[in-house]
Amino acid sequence: MTNQTNVILDCDPGHDDAIAIIMAASNANLNIEAITTVAGNVSVDKTTLNAQRICDLIDLKHVPLAKGANRPLVKRSEIAEEIHGDSGLDGPQFPDHPTKTIEKIHAADLIIDKILTSDKPITLVPTGPLTNIALAMLKEPAILPKIKEIVLMGGGTYGNWTPAAEFNIYVDAEAAKVVFESGVPLTMFGLDITHQAQATTSIIDDLAAIKNPVADTVVELLDFFKHTYQEYFGFDGAPIHDACTVAYLINPSIFDFKHVHVDIETKGEYSYGMTCVDLLGVTGKEPNVHFAHNIDQEKFWNLLKESLDSY
Amino acid sequence: MTNQTNVILDCDPGHDDAIAIIMAASNANLNIEAITTVAGNVSVDKTTLNAQRICDLIDLKHVPLAKGANRPLVKRSEIAEEIHGDSGLDGPQFPDHPTKTIEKIHAADLIIDKILTSDKPITLVPTGPLTNIALAMLKEPAILPKIKEIVLMGGGTYGNWTPAAEFNIYVDAEAAKVVFESGVPLTMFGLDITHQAQATTSIIDDLAAIKNPVADTVVELLDFFKHTYQEYFGFDGAPIHDACTVAYLINPSIFDFKHVHVDIETKGEYSYGMTCVDLLGVTGKEPNVHFAHNIDQEKFWNLLKESLDSY
Amino acid sequence: MTNQTNVILDCDPGHDDAIAIIMAASNANLNIEAITTVAGNVSVDKTTLNAQRICDLIDLKHVPLAKGANRPLVKRSEIAEEIHGDSGLDGPQFPDHPTKTIEKIHAADLIIDKILTSDKPITLVPTGPLTNIALAMLKEPAILPKIKEIVLMGGGTYGNWTPAAEFNIYVDAEAAKVVFESGVPLTMFGLDITHQAQATTSIIDDLAAIKNPVADTVVELLDFFKHTYQEYFGFDGAPIHDACTVAYLINPSIFDFKHVHVDIETKGEYSYGMTCVDLLGVTGKEPNVHFAHNIDQEKFWNLLKESLDSY
Amino acid sequence: MTNQTNVILDCDPGHDDAIAIIMAASNANLNIEAITTVAGNVSVDKTTLNAQRICDLIDLKHVPLAKGANRPLVKRSEIAEEIHGDSGLDGPQFPDHPTKTIEKIHAADLIIDKILTSDKPITLVPTGPLTNIALAMLKEPAILPKIKEIVLMGGGTYGNWTPAAEFNIYVDAEAAKVVFESGVPLTMFGLDITHQAQATTSIIDDLAAIKNPVADTVVELLDFFKHTYQEYFGFDGAPIHDACTVAYLINPSIFDFKHVHVDIETKGEYSYGMTCVDLLGVTGKEPNVHFAHNIDQEKFWNLLKESLDSY
Repeated sequence: MTNQTNVILDCDPGHDDAIAIIMAASNANLNIEAITTVAGNVSVDKTTLNAQRICDLIDLKHVPLAKGANRPLVKRSEIAEEIHGDSGLDGPQFPDHPTKTIEKIHAADLIIDKILTSDKPITLVPTGPLTNIALAMLKEPAILPKIKEIVLMGGGTYGNWTPAAEFNIYVDAEAAKVVFESGVPLTMFGLDITHQAQATTSIIDDLAAIKNPVADTVVELLDFFKHTYQEYFGFDGAPIHDACTVAYLINPSIFDFKHVHVDIETKGEYSYGMTCVDLLGVTGKEPNVHFAHNIDQEKFWNLLKESLDSY
Repeated sequence: MTNQTNVILDCDPGHDDAIAIIMAASNANLNIEAITTVAGNVSVDKTTLNAQRICDLIDLKHVPLAKGANRPLVKRSEIAEEIHGDSGLDGPQFPDHPTKTIEKIHAADLIIDKILTSDKPITLVPTGPLTNIALAMLKEPAILPKIKEIVLMGGGTYGNWTPAAEFNIYVDAEAAKVVFESGVPLTMFGLDITHQAQATTSIIDDLAAIKNPVADTVVELLDFFKHTYQEYFGFDGAPIHDACTVAYLINPSIFDFKHVHVDIETKGEYSYGMTCVDLLGVTGKEPNVHFAHNIDQEKFWNLLKESLDSY
Repeated sequence: MTNQTNVILDCDPGHDDAIAIIMAASNANLNIEAITTVAGNVSVDKTTLNAQRICDLIDLKHVPLAKGANRPLVKRSEIAEEIHGDSGLDGPQFPDHPTKTIEKIHAADLIIDKILTSDKPITLVPTGPLTNIALAMLKEPAILPKIKEIVLMGGGTYGNWTPAAEFNIYVDAEAAKVVFESGVPLTMFGLDITHQAQATTSIIDDLAAIKNPVADTVVELLDFFKHTYQEYFGFDGAPIHDACTVAYLINPSIFDFKHVHVDIETKGEYSYGMTCVDLLGVTGKEPNVHFAHNIDQEKFWNLLKESLDSY
Repeated sequence: MTNQTNVILDCDPGHDDAIAIIMAASNANLNIEAITTVAGNVSVDKTTLNAQRICDLIDLKHVPLAKGANRPLVKRSEIAEEIHGDSGLDGPQFPDHPTKTIEKIHAADLIIDKILTSDKPITLVPTGPLTNIALAMLKEPAILPKIKEIVLMGGGTYGNWTPAAEFNIYVDAEAAKVVFESGVPLTMFGLDITHQAQATTSIIDDLAAIKNPVADTVVELLDFFKHTYQEYFGFDGAPIHDACTVAYLINPSIFDFKHVHVDIETKGEYSYGMTCVDLLGVTGKEPNVHFAHNIDQEKFWNLLKESLDSY
């Protein structure tokens, strides 16, 4: 298709990563060039297994899947089992043995290969820590001018893992620094926006009415995820953080943006991993990020319903 | 008066500091034990001169005024002439020579003396950088259990001087760290609340209708301040940051609070001076701050009008 | 005496502080204007008691003694009981109740008063953390041009409390930053030099032959101190760190110096409290410190012997 | 040969890197599995060209040469043209077009392949910034238990690029942190030792008497290098930093070691890139580094002479 956006989904599924993959695979405007995995919500072995499970669920055979980094660039590992359960994808029952194959290439190398050999510029869609993206940039700087855009979930003007830092950026702030300083166009979906995309009971009920295996799995994922968000954060619903990136690529008009400068804090005592978003323009620095600050909720949930309906 | 709250106003006037003094002096429930000055919006010589001018304006003879620190505890000085003009109180015309006398004692020593000799516990109301308060605590730790409460303007979940830091805390984050870790009960009015207290044209017009010398001066202050906030930050009105502290002491029901933990960032590369406010309770640390997060605007502006009416 | 150097000894006795006081008091070229105490080796109550004991021992009646800061400017307290014992001056037996009086003024205020009222410029001799000196500078910047020189024990190109930091600077690196950036002439005796001034068994034996009450106490102090240095650091003798400052003021020719730039590290993860000494001149910054790098040991020990002989 | 040590030389030639390669290639006890290059003294394109030139000079045909990282993991690039000249190997005249081929594989991947496929454990010998080694560890953690030892030039108890940091570690302190925390046995030749290996005029004269093309080139390299060390640092001779690593692998008895803990400072304001060497054992942490602290100069220079004689 001539108007397709070629994307690589770099993820750590993760409930909301899984939904992002499901949405992306169902939309004809997106062409998934590869799925790559990274340690984050859980270890990279688990996130890769989860990616296999989702590919099996939606019968995504022809998209290569590659495993990536199991630790951050510099700091020690940190995972989020509190939020996603021991498997990283607790809730639904998946078959014991996935059939989806894993490529014998490192995620960073697959990203490099795809970018260097693709006819069309590629859009990277990282929904976990930015380790793989940073490794690819460090190993092969020639990819930088060939990346169309990086559409990421991460950061925000406040945090969820610490008061200052969101989980994805906190896990590997050094990788985030590499990416945010790369000069590649960035579109950022931080907590300011993703906390507006909360699947409440009534939304989950709507999805439960769809009744197909994919929708049923998504409902089970959301039930679990909503429960941990209620318990851990006192939220009413489960924020579908990562799916915002894919929703934007399908229909950019769902979101409003500000073009701002964002710095990544890697030195702070209490603010390591913060995305310092210059909303008031006080730094005088050139904008490097399209920062999503508003969402049309109706459009967003309709898109998710359409996606699940299509399976 | 038996129910009076004894306060020390430690300030760097500054347009909004001036209004805080004017509000405090007009209310019978507050007993101003002292006014102390600190470098901040402008140098301490200028903030002290401005405090004299306000005392003269409202004929505040019996409250001692003492000059304090002209620089932060550790880092180099920084001032905010962009916002408050060269004098720190640009807008109205003040007499050339103030008559209010300045005590021959350092602000930190006056704070110590007042706290140690007062029959009633004292409430400190810092509306500038926290240098004087920290110096007093460092020099005489015996004051700590005798301070009733510190009601301060500073910080917030976002910044105005950098993307992460509000001016008062940024100027002397080390002093803020001393104060926030002191164990003294803290009530904090950060940008989240003070940006809700914006004097727009219609509010200023209301005040202009009062027509007495004090109200007229306040109107001139607000005209100037609104102009710089429009120019520099793109705001509609002038946030009367500092007056929130006094309004709370007069009528606590104007504000809603959360009891949360706040850490002060002193090491960060991009987030020096940030108040890391744990609104989601993710740090597991004991709350040390009553964080104001909502204001009843009608009550607030009525209080200001009543105050100006009383002159 | 017209050629006398007027000094204020700001200290945290401490075995080597005690010897510094004893040396200073015995030399006619030095005029001790005041002794001030600070928390460091032990709490300020203990260091003040120890200062009283030393004053009693050498009958130092007319020098005012004032107590200072009990905590660092910004960070939490840290003491060195491992090195100096529970009292801070373990070893000798002192009378239970000292007779030396303590002035009713804070050390920082006494330092300010002495400097502002003295006919001659004053040399400050800090041999503990620099908290009092920094507080004096912060509270009264007018003292800066009136200080002749600050002759301090602290820092070095390596550490003893951490691999990077010497104890005095580590305890209050923020105070050190204030002092090192003050523009006042600084002469620094760091570990590079003071570890050359180790009282070995043979030196202690020499001092033991002097046989007067002061010398006997010094011998007992050195016996204890040597023991802890052997145990804790594996040294052959006890470094008389603090006495280097006084020895220099009596006879500068004992030491060789380089004029270099020194920055104080206050942000590092592993190097907080480091004095970054630019011996190779790679920073291109103006020298702010006379850094002692060589000692004439014979002259140094002879000076100590003469001093003890004089009692 | 059964007793050979299999080494990979990871370098940024650089005058002393060149001499390290020349020494290694001439000794039958070392088997060079690969030479890999990294940005450091100059850009990676220049260090790779210089590695080709040295391979051509000593006719090193069968050792694969691969180009690696052109920038540090996280921070911005920094190079040392002041010290090594514009080419990174100023001094001798080299042929315009090198004949040595460059492998079509990234240095980090060649390191991974060699380690994973070698029968014998491999010793890594990094004499530049540790970027390639860190990238290999991050990309393929399975190499960690298969590395015999890392013998590196870098760090020290003092610095040459800043007062606290040596150039190789300063350029990429984050990579150094990854390597020093990897658990792989480390042997470290820092400035403490390499500044003892200074080629003075008399040593260079001895080498000039050897008279073969390799020795002549080394003499020209040393003449240039000595000149810049005299000019820039005021040294008498040129420290052959990097050759210490190879000398140790040929004859470990040349050096004395202490087994100590070393942390890498990545946060400091003035001490970024410092190797915090716990010589006094004050951290209580497990030793992770064999720290060379003494050199037998006669043995060292004889080894270099023998090496050059053998060409």
